[in-house]
Amino acid sequence: MASALVLLSGGLDSTVTAAMARADGYDIDALTIRYGQRHERELRAAREVAQALDVDEHVELDVDLSAWGGSALTDEAEDVPVDREEDEMSEEIPVTYVPARNLVFLSLATSFAETREAETIYIGANAVDFSGYPDCRPAFLDAFETAAREGTKRGVEGQPVSIQAPLVDLTKAEIVELGNELQAPLELTWTCYQGGQQACGRCDACKLRLQGFAEAGVEDPVAYAE
Amino acid sequence: MASALVLLSGGLDSTVTAAMARADGYDIDALTIRYGQRHERELRAAREVAQALDVDEHVELDVDLSAWGGSALTDEAEDVPVDREEDEMSEEIPVTYVPARNLVFLSLATSFAETREAETIYIGANAVDFSGYPDCRPAFLDAFETAAREGTKRGVEGQPVSIQAPLVDLTKAEIVELGNELQAPLELTWTCYQGGQQACGRCDACKLRLQGFAEAGVEDPVAYAE
Repeated sequence: MASALVLLSGGLDSTVTAAMARADGYDIDALTIRYGQRHERELRAAREVAQALDVDEHVELDVDLSAWGGSALTDEAEDVPVDREEDEMSEEIPVTYVPARNLVFLSLATSFAETREAETIYIGANAVDFSGYPDCRPAFLDAFETAAREGTKRGVEGQPVSIQAPLVDLTKAEIVELGNELQAPLELTWTCYQGGQQACGRCDACKLRLQGFAEAGVEDPVAYAE
Repeated sequence: MASALVLLSGGLDSTVTAAMARADGYDIDALTIRYGQRHERELRAAREVAQALDVDEHVELDVDLSAWGGSALTDEAEDVPVDREEDEMSEEIPVTYVPARNLVFLSLATSFAETREAETIYIGANAVDFSGYPDCRPAFLDAFETAAREGTKRGVEGQPVSIQAPLVDLTKAEIVELGNELQAPLELTWTCYQGGQQACGRCDACKLRLQGFAEAGVEDPVAYAE
């Protein structure tokens, strides 16, 4: 059976993406990056999702992007915004942007995939809603695929690793519906930008998730504080 | 003064490249990646070179590419070849190829550079002689520059980080000559694929270096075993 490598953060999007790779008929390996997130909660989610989806090999790799800072997701000093309205969320590239994160993640996935002869890499990048992240757009993903082909042994030998971002054009509600159809383990996912026992329900990520479930008419299986 | 970020391994090429960035008038920050090399000797070299070149900020980052193996430079099980003739060295992509190494390194450099507003990244990639590494070719470096522009906040805002590989078309002898002219601290560099107190003089990297110094008519200031 052909194999695929999935970038798995433990969030909703990467979990639905991993379920998609399975549904596409692949054996899957998964890569989770500990990049200096302020909390470890989503790493536990990644482990549980990997187990639920019967991942062959799940590598957790430390790459401390907080070494140079520049993001509210890795800097202790910067606050994650909460209780923002939709128009505020869509304004600009958010403070939760981590410089070149998907560039780094896809590069590491390419290195891993090359050693395992994985045909393709699945990433849960999504350019819709209020993401505003440059590294989630198709123009970036296409450019990356070209760079990876030119910069790897397999690429120059005519066996490049392709990149698949099946959620890139879906709304959050469509992602929830897809995950529901695929019976992805949504109850194990972690979306909240903050740590804690329960998701806060107030940060941009929680609000976007909750709105997606509401629009899809699916009950969010995760518990929220308050 | 404008600033540049240099990928500094502690080897000859990256040291000459760093000296070039200085000569080009940049303040420099440096990034050294501990990617699971079998020895730590070259990390010491990187530190000493950074100090000699008055680097502003030198970050050493752990990114353990040996987590998935695939290279003689990170796998304990695989031997680094020694005493090979030139025609053997040029045959194919060598076992010392580390999957997607420059893709990973440049991605990390892009993340770092974005937070420091560095104008440009210097990398000592070199496509001449017997390198055979796909990720040292101009076609890859150009493709990477495009991917980095598309995948970063600065890129989409019209202030992309450029990539400079001033050694890419130089022979090893020309690199030695250039380093000599620039008064780069060649005596602090470490090239050998093996660890130890002194360079082995027998692996592909040592042989290529020695030949470069010989052709340039410059005495190699580094000591060799035997």
